[in-house]
Amino acid sequence: MLRNPLLVPDLRELIRAGETLALAEFLSDHHPGHVAEIIEDLGDSEGDTALRLLPDRTRAEVMSYVEPDRQVRVVEAMPPAEAASLLHLMSHDDRAHLVNRLDDDRADEILRNLAQAEREDIRRLASYEPGTAGSYMTTDYATLLPDLTRREALDRLRREAPDRETIDYSYVVDIDHKLVGIVPFTRLFLAKQLDTVADIMQRDIISARVDDDRETAARKVDRYDLNALPILDASDRLVGIITHDDAMDILRQEQTEDILAFGGVSAPAEDDDEGNYWQGRITSGVQRRVGWLMLLFLGGTITSWVIDAFEAIDQSLNYLKLEVFIPLLIGTGGNAGSQTVGTVIRGIALNQIQTVDTLKVVIREASTGLILGLLLGSVGFLFAWHKHPDYPLFGLVIALAILGICIWANAIGALVPLLASRFKIDPALVSAPLISTLVDTTGLVIFYSIAYLLLIRFA
Amino acid sequence: MLRNPLLVPDLRELIRAGETLALAEFLSDHHPGHVAEIIEDLGDSEGDTALRLLPDRTRAEVMSYVEPDRQVRVVEAMPPAEAASLLHLMSHDDRAHLVNRLDDDRADEILRNLAQAEREDIRRLASYEPGTAGSYMTTDYATLLPDLTRREALDRLRREAPDRETIDYSYVVDIDHKLVGIVPFTRLFLAKQLDTVADIMQRDIISARVDDDRETAARKVDRYDLNALPILDASDRLVGIITHDDAMDILRQEQTEDILAFGGVSAPAEDDDEGNYWQGRITSGVQRRVGWLMLLFLGGTITSWVIDAFEAIDQSLNYLKLEVFIPLLIGTGGNAGSQTVGTVIRGIALNQIQTVDTLKVVIREASTGLILGLLLGSVGFLFAWHKHPDYPLFGLVIALAILGICIWANAIGALVPLLASRFKIDPALVSAPLISTLVDTTGLVIFYSIAYLLLIRFA
Repeated sequence: MLRNPLLVPDLRELIRAGETLALAEFLSDHHPGHVAEIIEDLGDSEGDTALRLLPDRTRAEVMSYVEPDRQVRVVEAMPPAEAASLLHLMSHDDRAHLVNRLDDDRADEILRNLAQAEREDIRRLASYEPGTAGSYMTTDYATLLPDLTRREALDRLRREAPDRETIDYSYVVDIDHKLVGIVPFTRLFLAKQLDTVADIMQRDIISARVDDDRETAARKVDRYDLNALPILDASDRLVGIITHDDAMDILRQEQTEDILAFGGVSAPAEDDDEGNYWQGRITSGVQRRVGWLMLLFLGGTITSWVIDAFEAIDQSLNYLKLEVFIPLLIGTGGNAGSQTVGTVIRGIALNQIQTVDTLKVVIREASTGLILGLLLGSVGFLFAWHKHPDYPLFGLVIALAILGICIWANAIGALVPLLASRFKIDPALVSAPLISTLVDTTGLVIFYSIAYLLLIRFA
Repeated sequence: MLRNPLLVPDLRELIRAGETLALAEFLSDHHPGHVAEIIEDLGDSEGDTALRLLPDRTRAEVMSYVEPDRQVRVVEAMPPAEAASLLHLMSHDDRAHLVNRLDDDRADEILRNLAQAEREDIRRLASYEPGTAGSYMTTDYATLLPDLTRREALDRLRREAPDRETIDYSYVVDIDHKLVGIVPFTRLFLAKQLDTVADIMQRDIISARVDDDRETAARKVDRYDLNALPILDASDRLVGIITHDDAMDILRQEQTEDILAFGGVSAPAEDDDEGNYWQGRITSGVQRRVGWLMLLFLGGTITSWVIDAFEAIDQSLNYLKLEVFIPLLIGTGGNAGSQTVGTVIRGIALNQIQTVDTLKVVIREASTGLILGLLLGSVGFLFAWHKHPDYPLFGLVIALAILGICIWANAIGALVPLLASRFKIDPALVSAPLISTLVDTTGLVIFYSIAYLLLIRFA
């Protein structure tokens, strides 16, 4: 899908005609994210050409927005010294991710061309465990000492600005590099001449640890509406920041993984690509599905024991052909349970439901099941009556079975994610298939029991 | 769940002792989001008291972080003039949302105490259709004219700063208030003395329309890593901005709604609360579920016609008790289909899958189903053979039925969301229950057909 269909043919023309200056000028006027889209639209080879033609600083900015595969391809095609100067200009987190994707020899070759401090910065950022806050932080922030005056601080930021991704916020550190405050640039600018950094800095700091889960860190950015979250090591030293845009990326990945989990698929590995649909062999997709599917299959075999166990009832009610109604009844139970588990997982994710509310939630959901069961049960009654006009009592059996199954399915759909949450298992791992399978078995028991009671025991 | 369990008893003590000054001082030192948490932990009445004690400006900031219910309660308890001065200090979007939650008479009474321009600003922001970009934007941004010099621009921002939520970015407008550029404050500060705003502003502007869907706007903030997204009216005039933190809220709401939809529940109304789990009566939850559940129930009745239609086969294979295997087989199909639909919906949400890829995706998923079907089918063979040791051919029937059902369920699970997407229906509306129900019916047909072919036709 081309996002800039009108531009692409003209740009192709410029590339073919060798009008490199015109092309570079045209692209430099655009937002780097926009340029990246145009480059993706141009395709692999012409896109790479366009990227190579950009002025150094623009190219480094655009790199953050193009696909990881292209980043690797472009850097591998460069002489090591040129690749090193590109890395020098890139944002610190993105270049660390890029280095992680290169093969080790190639990365060594390139890093040898960088100053030691920069090389170490890249190595350190690239070394954090995937999925931790550390693996998402960047180091191109500005720091200030608390006793600087307004003028000294502004002078320092003016000097540092070209090397920093942003100086919108400065992090105030003591001589041990412990974080003691945060100063927005505008607050510094608006301060009185004689104010020091310590006078104006914000002292109540929201921060996270370098080995915290990335989601924990991103949720803080979200909850406190932060521009960036400072990341501290075990000794409270500032080691990086997670910016709001990276926090948004983390949350997007986590939340779309919840959809996978709800479908009963294990999440892709938490590295810095997003678990691209097309990446990897089909067998890796099989690996992430077969565990749950096999487990649920084995669990599902219980349904056959249940049917066997009630065989006597089935036989004596043979004239009603109970089995005709089984898929409908247990399917409805699975559907009602899926609705409930989706609702409850969402409530937990939004912090609206806590485990202490378990009983309240189960009662609320079972009540919802009661109303739904009365509605569907009425329709079920008519349906069964139509099938067996001579046995209206059987209509009642079907209606009561639907009612019982809806109440039960909703209670289970509420209880299971809350129990998971209580036992520190991510409730998002409770999937629609899990609930369906649980309800299949129990739904059969409810159906046969009601049939037995109404049609045999008290008939 | 108390987030600050150690603080709360001490603060309660301060409130009871009437130590209001000490309390206000203690709270003023904290991040407003942090103060809001403490206030929520204090409970309804003491929390309200603490909020009332805060200095005006701090209180206005904290208001943005406390629960909507408390915002309304606190404002309703205030004399109109005091409520008006609180609104005056609050961020423009949050006060508009708050006014929307007050009853009309009360809102009028309060707004009468504000200057006309401010009243109109609130009315306008409060009037946008829920779910549009307009209903999430704020108006407390700074604007500059393009021909201002650096010094003039800085002077202007210095004067305006106290009334703006942020001056990190300024929006450059012409005399018709059309947006022509964006200037980061730091860029202005670092500019040369004689530069004008026009010389240094970013001219390639990413923006959205006031009546765009909120998700479209939020996705732009995400894709281009923006600090804020300018919102334009139909004549390209700047009417507001959506800040990155509000964009994050929108995406969180949309994505957790995807979980609901996947469970087969209609999304809550797109107003500015998040569809709180506890809000509303149980009947409103029933309303959001009964539609799909009834539709799927009626669709599910087809399974009974299918079983009826194959009755002759069932009869002649009576010794195998086919019905014993039905819940297991169709359950497995539903589970495999749910996995696939979760995977594909995620791929579409992350823009990794486009509708032009439909055939490729269906083939890939069907191949995954083939491998899964071979694995599960082998287990199914052993299971069936164990049940009917005298009829190994029946084991083959079960194995082939599982294989066929897995391939088919995966193909359907891929096809349906992609078709929805092609017909401009949100693919996230394709739920696990929908796929399960579709696969129940077709799974029965596959099972009976294979049984007929192997055990009757070619026996």
